[in-house]
Amino acid sequence: MSPSVSVFGAAGFTGALTARLLFRHPSFELRALTARSDVGRRLDQLYPNHRVPLGLEELDLDRHADVDAAVVAYPHGAAAPLVAELIDRDVKVVDLSADFRLRDPETYEEWYREHPVPDLLGRAVYGLPELGYREAITGADLVANPGCYPTAALLALAPLAREGMIEDVVIDAKAGVSGAGRAASEATHFVTVDENISAYGVPRHRHTPEIEQELERAAGALVRVVFTPHLVPMTRGILASAYALPTDPKRPGHAYADELRRAYEKEPFVAVLDQPPDTAHVRGSNRVQVAAWWDARTGRVIVMGAIDNLVKGAAGQAVQCLNVMRGWDETAGLDGAGIFP
Amino acid sequence: MSPSVSVFGAAGFTGALTARLLFRHPSFELRALTARSDVGRRLDQLYPNHRVPLGLEELDLDRHADVDAAVVAYPHGAAAPLVAELIDRDVKVVDLSADFRLRDPETYEEWYREHPVPDLLGRAVYGLPELGYREAITGADLVANPGCYPTAALLALAPLAREGMIEDVVIDAKAGVSGAGRAASEATHFVTVDENISAYGVPRHRHTPEIEQELERAAGALVRVVFTPHLVPMTRGILASAYALPTDPKRPGHAYADELRRAYEKEPFVAVLDQPPDTAHVRGSNRVQVAAWWDARTGRVIVMGAIDNLVKGAAGQAVQCLNVMRGWDETAGLDGAGIFP
Amino acid sequence: MSPSVSVFGAAGFTGALTARLLFRHPSFELRALTARSDVGRRLDQLYPNHRVPLGLEELDLDRHADVDAAVVAYPHGAAAPLVAELIDRDVKVVDLSADFRLRDPETYEEWYREHPVPDLLGRAVYGLPELGYREAITGADLVANPGCYPTAALLALAPLAREGMIEDVVIDAKAGVSGAGRAASEATHFVTVDENISAYGVPRHRHTPEIEQELERAAGALVRVVFTPHLVPMTRGILASAYALPTDPKRPGHAYADELRRAYEKEPFVAVLDQPPDTAHVRGSNRVQVAAWWDARTGRVIVMGAIDNLVKGAAGQAVQCLNVMRGWDETAGLDGAGIFP
Amino acid sequence: MSPSVSVFGAAGFTGALTARLLFRHPSFELRALTARSDVGRRLDQLYPNHRVPLGLEELDLDRHADVDAAVVAYPHGAAAPLVAELIDRDVKVVDLSADFRLRDPETYEEWYREHPVPDLLGRAVYGLPELGYREAITGADLVANPGCYPTAALLALAPLAREGMIEDVVIDAKAGVSGAGRAASEATHFVTVDENISAYGVPRHRHTPEIEQELERAAGALVRVVFTPHLVPMTRGILASAYALPTDPKRPGHAYADELRRAYEKEPFVAVLDQPPDTAHVRGSNRVQVAAWWDARTGRVIVMGAIDNLVKGAAGQAVQCLNVMRGWDETAGLDGAGIFP
Repeated sequence: MSPSVSVFGAAGFTGALTARLLFRHPSFELRALTARSDVGRRLDQLYPNHRVPLGLEELDLDRHADVDAAVVAYPHGAAAPLVAELIDRDVKVVDLSADFRLRDPETYEEWYREHPVPDLLGRAVYGLPELGYREAITGADLVANPGCYPTAALLALAPLAREGMIEDVVIDAKAGVSGAGRAASEATHFVTVDENISAYGVPRHRHTPEIEQELERAAGALVRVVFTPHLVPMTRGILASAYALPTDPKRPGHAYADELRRAYEKEPFVAVLDQPPDTAHVRGSNRVQVAAWWDARTGRVIVMGAIDNLVKGAAGQAVQCLNVMRGWDETAGLDGAGIFP
Repeated sequence: MSPSVSVFGAAGFTGALTARLLFRHPSFELRALTARSDVGRRLDQLYPNHRVPLGLEELDLDRHADVDAAVVAYPHGAAAPLVAELIDRDVKVVDLSADFRLRDPETYEEWYREHPVPDLLGRAVYGLPELGYREAITGADLVANPGCYPTAALLALAPLAREGMIEDVVIDAKAGVSGAGRAASEATHFVTVDENISAYGVPRHRHTPEIEQELERAAGALVRVVFTPHLVPMTRGILASAYALPTDPKRPGHAYADELRRAYEKEPFVAVLDQPPDTAHVRGSNRVQVAAWWDARTGRVIVMGAIDNLVKGAAGQAVQCLNVMRGWDETAGLDGAGIFP
Repeated sequence: MSPSVSVFGAAGFTGALTARLLFRHPSFELRALTARSDVGRRLDQLYPNHRVPLGLEELDLDRHADVDAAVVAYPHGAAAPLVAELIDRDVKVVDLSADFRLRDPETYEEWYREHPVPDLLGRAVYGLPELGYREAITGADLVANPGCYPTAALLALAPLAREGMIEDVVIDAKAGVSGAGRAASEATHFVTVDENISAYGVPRHRHTPEIEQELERAAGALVRVVFTPHLVPMTRGILASAYALPTDPKRPGHAYADELRRAYEKEPFVAVLDQPPDTAHVRGSNRVQVAAWWDARTGRVIVMGAIDNLVKGAAGQAVQCLNVMRGWDETAGLDGAGIFP
Repeated sequence: MSPSVSVFGAAGFTGALTARLLFRHPSFELRALTARSDVGRRLDQLYPNHRVPLGLEELDLDRHADVDAAVVAYPHGAAAPLVAELIDRDVKVVDLSADFRLRDPETYEEWYREHPVPDLLGRAVYGLPELGYREAITGADLVANPGCYPTAALLALAPLAREGMIEDVVIDAKAGVSGAGRAASEATHFVTVDENISAYGVPRHRHTPEIEQELERAAGALVRVVFTPHLVPMTRGILASAYALPTDPKRPGHAYADELRRAYEKEPFVAVLDQPPDTAHVRGSNRVQVAAWWDARTGRVIVMGAIDNLVKGAAGQAVQCLNVMRGWDETAGLDGAGIFP
């Protein structure tokens, strides 16, 4: 019998896409969808393309938590209490919010608010299998799905940080609008986004401490990261362009790309390119493109990573983690190739 | 009698827009347009919106150089010989190409090719009035119109470099497709650009030495700049996001924005913002938006500049320089407000 | 002394653009801006590109109505009472809403609601100078600025209707998102609009009776029009494609385009093309492109009209009407050329 | 053993996407790809997202025609001779070009040129299973894959034509740029397409006789169709909006949508909607959305159809036909859900 799974908060972009991936997953049974808006509507009314003929229900833990696994797609702060309840009921959880990504509750408090369930932080595993978390995810009760920006940036940078090859990192990231979620606002109005590029969250965006935490873990040393996101007139995709100093300027120029190739040679979702990544080439898929250059003239290492923010940056990564948690083929249900053109 | 002006190379985006601005200029008489393609067609057939009812003619120096001033919108390399001929005939020239931007012929050769008329380099003035070139432009025979990326980056960075406030600069720039020009190619095909963001020219783009030259001149010291351009799915606009180290980390955080405000307080085209610039807010105008932040947490200065690459980054700047050369109001013919939404 | 003008409802797209056009108008003095949101902010904070440094004020008729002329940019229904007050105070009004476009209050009631001030309907003149209303506008107290879709459709169709050349009209219109206004909603969210085309208001859109009214007036006979608008992933522009039967199939094929050329030969804003219009070529301007074809194979007349919905479809048309009302050059303050690329 | 298949002309958008679908098809073995450009490159270099690691080879019939089935994605005119050779060698062919869609060689000559292999026309079956061709496709040697516009228009109109419910049809279609193919030209340059909508092929587009042929076959009577395509600033998607007269104005208003529902009730790819179709909701999938309305006020039937032009309008339809030809489940290899947002 297939293990059962519910998606909590399935009306938003990432929850809905998670529902779609799980509905078509070869080994999961998608049991139920809850939502905080649009209760009573069917998911395929909101997202006809996903073709998931399940209704959106008001949260009823007795019914909805009677499953083997859960994906929680609630906003930051709202997720933690629900996750705590699910863990209490022995449900394996992948949480898409930021609530369990930061291991240190004080850092969480500095960037968000007081953490509602700090005791649970120790049980959460960071859900980026490619960064050495695969084994920990396998045995985890609670997986904190990484943020979309951190996923793009870390997949490009962490292998080099781990080998002690870089320091002093500046990340300039560019993202499509879907990352802002389904809520309509002046910021997501078509006329605001169209024919425009603009930064936001300068100089403090909440994804910064998550990137620092993981680069520090990889490097084994304190890392301070400048991180500036920009909004691009497109729906999906994140490109993280990063600029770092080499720890050893005498290292051969090909060493950085070589290290990425070595790190990812067995990874099913990561392609290491010789040319700059294109977000269009990973759109609609769980794929990642990374590349690295040594600029001898200026003595800088340039690294880039491209993902689809809704797939590898959210829903696809959640399904990948669920696959790892159950010991299945990591690509199960994630073989969709991207859309281009 | 109004001074006469011809545009050489008026079939491309920047030449055509220069023609439009001069055709509607209160004090110039637009005499003739030459082109290397589309000869025999009228400019308003190619660009109905510009509404310039002049024909595109094959180059005939005897006729076309019998003017007071000229704007040359030829590709790099092709421009220099024509400029030399025009200067010989005592025509005041603004050249949109890169041929006279780099003062050192060896640098030109390193990034482009052997310079065709190196003797003329000494007579060219860099055409960025806001950067202290106003007086030199007034008396110049030959003005080298700055590149679009350098204009956006330098207007944000140079005041801080001049005051010795920053060093170690990384520029991550984003631009619309019109900067690639009118030639159709896989790179400018709609399906390549749409719903995509991607870097190009990594790690060596030809605008780098121009930026370095001007920052060095401002700072009075050698500057090496990392410069990475990205292509954004939009037609017009450049946003340059720059990251620098402070020379004095103890400087108050507001010092950087203050210096920009001081530098530009009398400039008619530059607005210093408290929030991140939007390229959409300068689209269609010769306006510039700049902003600066001090990120105390990481000890970095973040600076941004936004322009319309075809206006302040090319045609509008050329007209501004022509105005300066003649001692007119710098904003003559450039009062068009931008389009948004 | 310049006549004074106020804009009522200047926070929205069309009111703000009207304010910008009047602020830069050679002969009007823009006195004040009122708004129903964003009171206390300056217009150039909301729309930096417009560069209008006036504050948005709460409505105070004693102050704001002490002007020679007014443009009202209120929503349908809300406009009529304000217009009535202004007319009472002898202010000449151009109203951008639908409240005074339909001459018959019963038609208004059928498509909108009960008309709040039906007695005023008889004093309103339809503000499309190119359609024979020029003289009436000159003497009018109240001008009903046409809708954006009717402007595009009528400019293409009315000359042929007036000559009795066509009947049985189907209009398939396509518009950018700015026509939906500034309010953020699921319908204007970037991800809804981007990479999509879809119809709305099928089969009853409120602009239909306005189109019918004016075609009937031109043709001198009852006309029923099928009108279907579509939303296009762009910010500005309307293209109306219309399909009609000829009243005389033996008429020569060039008769339709000839008639458009004859009708508009002295019109400063209308261009009659031999090829299909492009909305991009009129973007940012008060210009209109129209074209007509006879399809002998199917016996159909095909007519198209393109405008910028915010300019000729709203704010520019209002300024054009104000110019006519005062007997000035109709193009005063409207000479901005469009933006392309 | 899986039947083998080759794709001829796999470097273009439709050929490449066909290759991708067949490479991931559960029951086909994709044997080889030929191309007329880019020979020697691998398909995943041109289209990284498709992830098809096969090389593009120069045509060598002895090798490439040694397969059970072939998809030909050559331009019109170039396809016919290759198809003839493949049929000679007993290969089952689905041809994506227009060469075998028109049953009457004189009609082909009128709209294209003299037909190169008119004798073969009688063997071709029109590849639109949903329109009553399923059985004929099953036994066919040669399937003429329908054009993208005809697919969208016919799926919306043909059931009503077949029941004799409509006449006098006007089709106003809107399409993304990918339909223009991979060749770079001024027409496909980003700046031409972006922020623009424009018609083309007025009043004669080559897809017209194909639509007429199939509506005539459905209706059993001569049909003349006005068909006007428009280019929309997006990559994928076609929306066909059609306007027809009812043969019986007294028919109840719901009859038209009812008939569509009846016609498609067992069709796996077609959804009949109550609201206007969105191309974004079928993007990336072989799905179709259709809808119909009766406009009692004007006495018109309005019908709409939306598809992804590269999938149901080309590559997906070809795979669907191959499935039908082999008697397999028609959805095999076509279960990808669309991408939205």
